[in-house]
Amino acid sequence: MSQSRDKALYQIQGILLLCLWYCGEHLQLRCRLCLFRLSLRIPREVIRANIGDAHAMGQKPITFIRQVVAICAYPELLNSDMMPEDAKQRARYLLQGCNGGSLGAYSMSQGIDRIRKKVAKYIETRDGGIPSDPETIFLTTGASDGIVTIMKLLVSGHGRCRTGVMIPIPQYPLYSAAISELAAVQVNYYLDEDNAWALNVPELRRSLNEARKRCYPRVLCVINPGNPTGQVQCRKCVEDVIRFAAEENLLLMADEVYQDNVYAEGCQFHSFKKVLFEMGPEYSDTVELASFHSISKGYMGECGFRAGYMELVNMDPEVKAQLVKLVSVRLCPPVTGQAVIDLITDPPQPGDPSHENFIQEKQQVLSALAEKAHLSEQMFNSIPGFQCNPVQGAMYTFPRIQLPPRAVQAAQAAGQAPDMFYCMKLLEEMGICVVPGSGFGQREGTYHFRMTILPPLEKLKTVLENIKGFHQRFIEEFS
Amino acid sequence: MSQSRDKALYQIQGILLLCLWYCGEHLQLRCRLCLFRLSLRIPREVIRANIGDAHAMGQKPITFIRQVVAICAYPELLNSDMMPEDAKQRARYLLQGCNGGSLGAYSMSQGIDRIRKKVAKYIETRDGGIPSDPETIFLTTGASDGIVTIMKLLVSGHGRCRTGVMIPIPQYPLYSAAISELAAVQVNYYLDEDNAWALNVPELRRSLNEARKRCYPRVLCVINPGNPTGQVQCRKCVEDVIRFAAEENLLLMADEVYQDNVYAEGCQFHSFKKVLFEMGPEYSDTVELASFHSISKGYMGECGFRAGYMELVNMDPEVKAQLVKLVSVRLCPPVTGQAVIDLITDPPQPGDPSHENFIQEKQQVLSALAEKAHLSEQMFNSIPGFQCNPVQGAMYTFPRIQLPPRAVQAAQAAGQAPDMFYCMKLLEEMGICVVPGSGFGQREGTYHFRMTILPPLEKLKTVLENIKGFHQRFIEEFS
Repeated sequence: MSQSRDKALYQIQGILLLCLWYCGEHLQLRCRLCLFRLSLRIPREVIRANIGDAHAMGQKPITFIRQVVAICAYPELLNSDMMPEDAKQRARYLLQGCNGGSLGAYSMSQGIDRIRKKVAKYIETRDGGIPSDPETIFLTTGASDGIVTIMKLLVSGHGRCRTGVMIPIPQYPLYSAAISELAAVQVNYYLDEDNAWALNVPELRRSLNEARKRCYPRVLCVINPGNPTGQVQCRKCVEDVIRFAAEENLLLMADEVYQDNVYAEGCQFHSFKKVLFEMGPEYSDTVELASFHSISKGYMGECGFRAGYMELVNMDPEVKAQLVKLVSVRLCPPVTGQAVIDLITDPPQPGDPSHENFIQEKQQVLSALAEKAHLSEQMFNSIPGFQCNPVQGAMYTFPRIQLPPRAVQAAQAAGQAPDMFYCMKLLEEMGICVVPGSGFGQREGTYHFRMTILPPLEKLKTVLENIKGFHQRFIEEFS
Repeated sequence: MSQSRDKALYQIQGILLLCLWYCGEHLQLRCRLCLFRLSLRIPREVIRANIGDAHAMGQKPITFIRQVVAICAYPELLNSDMMPEDAKQRARYLLQGCNGGSLGAYSMSQGIDRIRKKVAKYIETRDGGIPSDPETIFLTTGASDGIVTIMKLLVSGHGRCRTGVMIPIPQYPLYSAAISELAAVQVNYYLDEDNAWALNVPELRRSLNEARKRCYPRVLCVINPGNPTGQVQCRKCVEDVIRFAAEENLLLMADEVYQDNVYAEGCQFHSFKKVLFEMGPEYSDTVELASFHSISKGYMGECGFRAGYMELVNMDPEVKAQLVKLVSVRLCPPVTGQAVIDLITDPPQPGDPSHENFIQEKQQVLSALAEKAHLSEQMFNSIPGFQCNPVQGAMYTFPRIQLPPRAVQAAQAAGQAPDMFYCMKLLEEMGICVVPGSGFGQREGTYHFRMTILPPLEKLKTVLENIKGFHQRFIEEFS
């Protein structure tokens, strides 16, 4: 394994995407990326607020989704009176789309035909009628798979000059890891923390100009709603970014996996696809766009099924052809996950037996998330030394924390990033697992952590109270 | 996209891993890899004997597997009297191993702990008690995912000299595609067609010596039972290969996805792991081995779930650490597929309610495959101009066909490989889809095709009769 590439890839300082498990009374920790390992004697529950894994935090699956999956897996259930008629009907429809009528057959590599058509229809409805072509839809093994695949296609072939990929800071670390793995160049642009983590074009331009000295910037990644930062871009902001991409001939990668997770009043999700087409043919005929969605987030939170989709706009036919080849090598995305995509893009309609329950379950999840987003922000802002932007969308708070100089020194003595030091203490003392900002990138000298808003409300309140108490003690200890 | 790499990757001449679908009365064809497209007016059924996709050819899923998956997906079914007690018990066990008790939560990246333990136990039993450590087991998104991941780890870091990967010819094209994608060097060794596609060490040595002039050969891939060639390696042959790998310091990649598919009398599957350990510490302490298995083949044929596992022996701890990091970026393999791995590595035991039915279904599939393997070989060998090695294992026949010089000329005039030309005619005239040998590689001037033995018996008989008739007409036409 090449050392330099490897180092670039994995020494993302301080990342703490931890695996946690108990071995007797000792909590075992292992970081998923840096392999940092630790054994702690914490004889009580650990709150895993480090990863956007809704079901792991107790969120219940949507009944209709699971009923249809169960029937597809075991079609004898078409005879069961435990299953509603519309679930049976949908299972029949999906199995007809599977080779041999089985979830166990390979599908086409791009994804099952009738499901891609549903996705296209769903996008059209979402975007107020702007057309979407099923041929431009690719079902994927989760959004991560799609993102890495597209990057792989784009990141090569510019002669001796390496391809630059612009990513927000803070960012979801999949991006930096993929860039390093592909030996591309990471080009950072900073989100504006003082302005609710807004994406500003002047900062994009600064970043691009600086990057052109060292690489060939070709891709601009945007995460909207933001992870870990939780901002939801306004329409004008999306427009500005598209205009910038058009001027600078950048391909846009729009990570929109949190499109259903918008909570703040006055905020609305604007898909890049929709805005692009509303800006007229000057843009909609030229700007290359790949946008990504997933079944892992939203109200369904079905991470374990590993499924998502991407839509490609204005993609060079040759590049698209390469893409078809590239995905074919892996045969097909998991078929069960593809079925779930069908269900979220074409949910039960009014009048269907499952409609009412589906809507109720969906609303319950989303309104609980909205309440918890608001609560977390409020609570954090009530802690002296905390500063937390509104959680407009996604599933995370990303508060900025002021750490006393003595804490910074103690961290350095321990060989840790200061916010890593803070998060480890929080875990050790309170059993609360969050991710230090250094895992996502942050402006030099600032410190943050990412915490999911996924714990059940009462538990979340306790967590927030506990963090407050912890922080006061921490500050006292290091003042 | 880099042109040269791209060309190497995809211009695998004549490959015909076709997607087929009807559009009105016209059959649409698209090759999964070379994107070759065609529309044919074939107003009758097409037999897709081109891909090892058991369920697509009508094989029924194993009931117990699907019952457990259904209950896991929709745990309300724990209350259903349609489900046997052992399926319920297993579902409870599996859900306890899932975070939040849900298939929808992420698992550990390496795979669910208790399932990896089952896999290790399964391997131990298979290999007569030779120990297997769950820490060396990685669950994967199908065997392809594991193979590509391991190659990615190994194929770099030898300075300016590119890494060579030895693969059999004929080979399953995943290997050549992955090698090209990773910009490694494909090093061909030829299987001995005159000797039932045996793997000979002198040929390995010839290939290695030749390759050392142009690259740094580091990996030796073996497919056993063979795809597309169907041979099952004898114990001595496995031993010879291991000794060769030890002498030449090659890492062995053993693709053993067809380990349950052995039909010929006197043939037996010998895992590389077992033989390695039986050869004593001189080998078992030193030879690096990665072996792969899958739920897509065997008697279950659950391709659509995309799951498999790999076991690593003597892997450098640093390389293993990199692997853990690499798989972490994609979060985790599909959890439903992981559950299926649990079921095939720990099937119902005597006394369990589902045991009898499970064994019966399994035997039914395997004995039908054995019958069809035998039938296909016999039938092909009865056709003048056909020469077919015994189908000792796997799911394919790979007959050699003699093509008259005029057919070769006609193919050249059409810009096609001669066996591609033959296979296209077979598809057009008879609606039978098989893969030309040129897609797998073959000795210069020889022609083959790969046909699965998966069609139901009666249909397979018709297919074989039809090929016989077609071949006679073809020979007449071009004599």
